[in-house]
Amino acid sequence: MADQPNQGPSRRQFLTSAAALGAGAGISAVAGSASAATPDPLITEVQDWASGLGDGVDASPYGVPIQFEGDVIRRNVEWLTADTISSINFTPIHALDGTITPQGCAFERHHSGAIELKKEDYRLMINGLVDTPLVFSYEDLERFPRQNHTYFLECAANTGMEWAGAQLNGAQFTHGMIHNMEYSGVTLRTLLEEAGLDAAGDLKDKWVYVEGADASSNGRSIPMEKALDDCLIAFKANGEALRMEHGYPVRLVVPGWEGNMWVKWIRRIEVMDGPVESREETSKYTDVLEDGTARKWTWVMDAKSIVTSPSPQAPIKHGHGPLVITGLAWSGHGKITRVDVSKDGGKTWETARLGKEGEDKALTRFYLDTEWNGEEMFLQSRAIDETGYVQPTKTQLREVRGLNSIYHNNCIQTWWVKADGEAENVEVS
Amino acid sequence: MADQPNQGPSRRQFLTSAAALGAGAGISAVAGSASAATPDPLITEVQDWASGLGDGVDASPYGVPIQFEGDVIRRNVEWLTADTISSINFTPIHALDGTITPQGCAFERHHSGAIELKKEDYRLMINGLVDTPLVFSYEDLERFPRQNHTYFLECAANTGMEWAGAQLNGAQFTHGMIHNMEYSGVTLRTLLEEAGLDAAGDLKDKWVYVEGADASSNGRSIPMEKALDDCLIAFKANGEALRMEHGYPVRLVVPGWEGNMWVKWIRRIEVMDGPVESREETSKYTDVLEDGTARKWTWVMDAKSIVTSPSPQAPIKHGHGPLVITGLAWSGHGKITRVDVSKDGGKTWETARLGKEGEDKALTRFYLDTEWNGEEMFLQSRAIDETGYVQPTKTQLREVRGLNSIYHNNCIQTWWVKADGEAENVEVS
Repeated sequence: MADQPNQGPSRRQFLTSAAALGAGAGISAVAGSASAATPDPLITEVQDWASGLGDGVDASPYGVPIQFEGDVIRRNVEWLTADTISSINFTPIHALDGTITPQGCAFERHHSGAIELKKEDYRLMINGLVDTPLVFSYEDLERFPRQNHTYFLECAANTGMEWAGAQLNGAQFTHGMIHNMEYSGVTLRTLLEEAGLDAAGDLKDKWVYVEGADASSNGRSIPMEKALDDCLIAFKANGEALRMEHGYPVRLVVPGWEGNMWVKWIRRIEVMDGPVESREETSKYTDVLEDGTARKWTWVMDAKSIVTSPSPQAPIKHGHGPLVITGLAWSGHGKITRVDVSKDGGKTWETARLGKEGEDKALTRFYLDTEWNGEEMFLQSRAIDETGYVQPTKTQLREVRGLNSIYHNNCIQTWWVKADGEAENVEVS
Repeated sequence: MADQPNQGPSRRQFLTSAAALGAGAGISAVAGSASAATPDPLITEVQDWASGLGDGVDASPYGVPIQFEGDVIRRNVEWLTADTISSINFTPIHALDGTITPQGCAFERHHSGAIELKKEDYRLMINGLVDTPLVFSYEDLERFPRQNHTYFLECAANTGMEWAGAQLNGAQFTHGMIHNMEYSGVTLRTLLEEAGLDAAGDLKDKWVYVEGADASSNGRSIPMEKALDDCLIAFKANGEALRMEHGYPVRLVVPGWEGNMWVKWIRRIEVMDGPVESREETSKYTDVLEDGTARKWTWVMDAKSIVTSPSPQAPIKHGHGPLVITGLAWSGHGKITRVDVSKDGGKTWETARLGKEGEDKALTRFYLDTEWNGEEMFLQSRAIDETGYVQPTKTQLREVRGLNSIYHNNCIQTWWVKADGEAENVEVS
């Protein structure tokens, strides 16, 4: 390592001297390294890790993140629910990049806890208005043609605490009831056709009722049109088996629709003449309007987006100059075609760059490569999907839906970024 | 659960009675459930997991696979190397589906062990023929525009033990030195331009020399054309931080080129007038031909494919009838456009179905939905990429390269599937 970097008029000098303002010893040492007066020992000296052997390939049978990433984990909010058995934890979206959510940090919602169900003990029944009621073992399911699709799953209650005002301080907590994985499985259409749908007569008015093997059963009604469109009986997520907490060995995937319908440990699919009007689609997962009536069958997750960094859990620590603003956008109606970012609470907008072309009903990463010199920002993002739908403001949403709702809050979120780079969840009028 | 499936002339009856032939109690119970005479208690009785509460959302800060998947792990082959510090383990590709490889089971190759390097202690130097030598901290890197791309990484030695004949019995061991992840990072071009490439004059003949922070340093030379094309300085894989064993906090991504060049814990990039001819590109990672001379600069991983199931570690256990044959295909030259499957050792071929359209320099999943009635099969797959290149047979490869090579064996692989569904690694002439 004989070469020493020279002091020069480069952008990098700007970066490091700016960085030294906002952070600790590590960053300062870099700035020092650019100056001949204070050599950076990390550059000039042979470090421990370069002078000896590291760990072997068998250190862990299943690899987990390095200890320094111990804060990039799902988190619960204790006051939200009385017990973790019927609770939620949140994906650390403020700390992730790209679009895939690793299973290890993908949020969970349990209605009666996560159950441990062996493949050998797994059965899936299709009954009701079909020619031949069927029971499939796990091995049976593996014998039907499989598909691979990446889809987001968003809980209907994601951002639900924000209806009445800014409450939870962090993208993980306001928007972390979401994940995005590549699923492998058999289409629900394939299995329904295997059971023979002829008995159902005109399919247009038919429904399926789906339930899980856990004690809650979490039964939901799905119109036949959706059941035959793009639903999957999935065994794998991001290539490997579903995690126990995500429904091992088999869950239902209902692309673009609220997460509660993605029944985990799915055990039964009944073809019916109409919906069941179960607990999970009447007293829960309906939207109470201003006049006290409730909207029901509000399945689709409308277009939505969130700036993940900077955000309350991901403040700007590197000082002034170049700044990458990034976040996620998604729509249950299809592809994201554009994301705009505002720094002034929605007065003016800049079009963000998409990490890659929007995919059908999947998370899309956006970036705004910009400059920041300590000015206060009211950061917002708004998503636009292929139908032309534009993500609404909180005010627009309240005009239609009032303040009584919990579910389906897809409003534009605001982070107040202060001069010191810290960010806070606020409302702008 | 009042409904009982009826015995009927469905495909399912075929499935389950077939399944009963080949496997244990679980499968037999399913077959039984289809008959009124032997009700399946898994269908007719309330099970433990449906009659009580499961685990809460806080069971594990970072989620790992369920205990029943304890065999879906990276595996070492002890006789391949003297020590795990300078060894390899293999991705369990026989047990995965889709295209994404989870970090937890993505193979590792260490030359002097995996090192533990904090973000705060991380530095990346660019020096040599540039206007301004630069040193970047981790935080500096995060301030440049980022991209997201899914790429495969294949070790040059993948399938290397098979040159002389069929040796390792399992897709994990013959083809498991590969993984496929979505990377987020900054382009190498961006950082080189930041340092000012003008000093390098005509870039056409220039090279970069890249080295890692571990004791091996693993230095490699890369032509400037590739460095400026699609190389990434990556911080994240599948959304989250790189695992320690994959180069945390930063590794080089060299799409489509041999994995050894994807330097982990990357610490220095020197712009030079020519290649260094380092250990890793002379005594290693060159291909010894029949006459004793060695090919060098054989960077690109040519089009290749492998049937992952059925395979020696994934025998057919469900008996006769419908069978899904599946596997992976990839090319360092671009997209996979077609995969063919042969059941008779290459005499006749059927075109497989791609799980989704081939992506540039990324794994592509293929499926052949077929029937199997106990006949012996010599299963092969061959990949075709967008350049029109067709994966060669082992005979074709040997004609050109002889038997002395280790690296860059992309020949067609054969699994002999026997009447009992077990499979074995064999050669067909």
